Amino acid sequence: MTAATTPRRRLDADERRRQLIELGIEMLSAHPREGVAIDRIAEAAGISRGLLFHYFPTKRDYHVAVIQAAADRLLDVTAPPAEGELADRLRTSLDAYIDFVVDNQAVYVSLVRGAVGGDDDLQEIFDRTRGRIVTRIADALGMDARRPALRTALRGWIGFVEESTLDWLRHDDLSRRTLIGLQEQALTAVLGEPPA
Amino acid sequence: MTAATTPRRRLDADERRRQLIELGIEMLSAHPREGVAIDRIAEAAGISRGLLFHYFPTKRDYHVAVIQAAADRLLDVTAPPAEGELADRLRTSLDAYIDFVVDNQAVYVSLVRGAVGGDDDLQEIFDRTRGRIVTRIADALGMDARRPALRTALRGWIGFVEESTLDWLRHDDLSRRTLIGLQEQALTAVLGEPPA
Repeated sequence: MTAATTPRRRLDADERRRQLIELGIEMLSAHPREGVAIDRIAEAAGISRGLLFHYFPTKRDYHVAVIQAAADRLLDVTAPPAEGELADRLRTSLDAYIDFVVDNQAVYVSLVRGAVGGDDDLQEIFDRTRGRIVTRIADALGMDARRPALRTALRGWIGFVEESTLDWLRHDDLSRRTLIGLQEQALTAVLGEPPA
Repeated sequence: MTAATTPRRRLDADERRRQLIELGIEMLSAHPREGVAIDRIAEAAGISRGLLFHYFPTKRDYHVAVIQAAADRLLDVTAPPAEGELADRLRTSLDAYIDFVVDNQAVYVSLVRGAVGGDDDLQEIFDRTRGRIVTRIADALGMDARRPALRTALRGWIGFVEESTLDWLRHDDLSRRTLIGLQEQALTAVLGEPPA
């Protein structure tokens, strides 16, 4: 076998897709302003530009897939534990949220800021992610997420968490504990009763 | 005098600039997805495309000026009364905020969503607007906006107000009174004491 017929590693389609998305998340973290650079992604994966476009027909499709994967990861890591006191489950979830933010600052900023803007697909991804967080909290509380006042309160609270976290990142002058405390206070207040 | 030497109305530079910005805000309200269309703005103002570019060198300059004007207007109309109980002043200000949102839905969505995204200038406008709201509230409370916990709490609260208002607009199934009530509750909670 010659080098040309021996890819560095043969991956099946799903593995390849996952690898490319993973590289995209890494690149977005390292160079958030530039977005994902197809040539460099292909090079890092050891494949041709053409093969990358086989998996993602356009650069835009690729970018949307990367942002979707980052949003899914955020949801995964912040899933609250199934058992325990509500207040403890909330704190565990917020802790995981802040961990994600600290480990993926650029991706996070891109998710809550860059992902909005003019692009409908990206905006929809983030909107859906927010909606899933609302449903998750309502479920944990044994409440109906479709109740307008609860839905609006929880959406507002997600805005609180996002903006306060961005501010915390930007200034780096507040303890993580205080930040989470503020977020807990805000949720408790809009739920009209302590979450525990 | 011939028609060619008689503009429909002769405006001085400042008036013309204001007129063009006003038309931009109107157009953004009517056609938010398309942004500002230079040709139609020039036509509506009764001037040539070239003259518009005399006032705003590029389309981007024009767009930034329009968004800046909309942000300034939001700040103007929501300025709290100088006197009265804190809780009343807050309510008056939130009422004016919701009025602005209802009267300028598309511009508002564009401000809090579209204005972010990749564009640094627009992002900076909105960031500065949020910063001015934080300072204003801290001043009203006789507190120091530079205190990290207060600043972060107030930035978070602005996120709450924005997201809850967007949700309220989108679903149109909640009373304005309930919305404002949620926003008041959230602020009271993160200030750690009733604002009144």
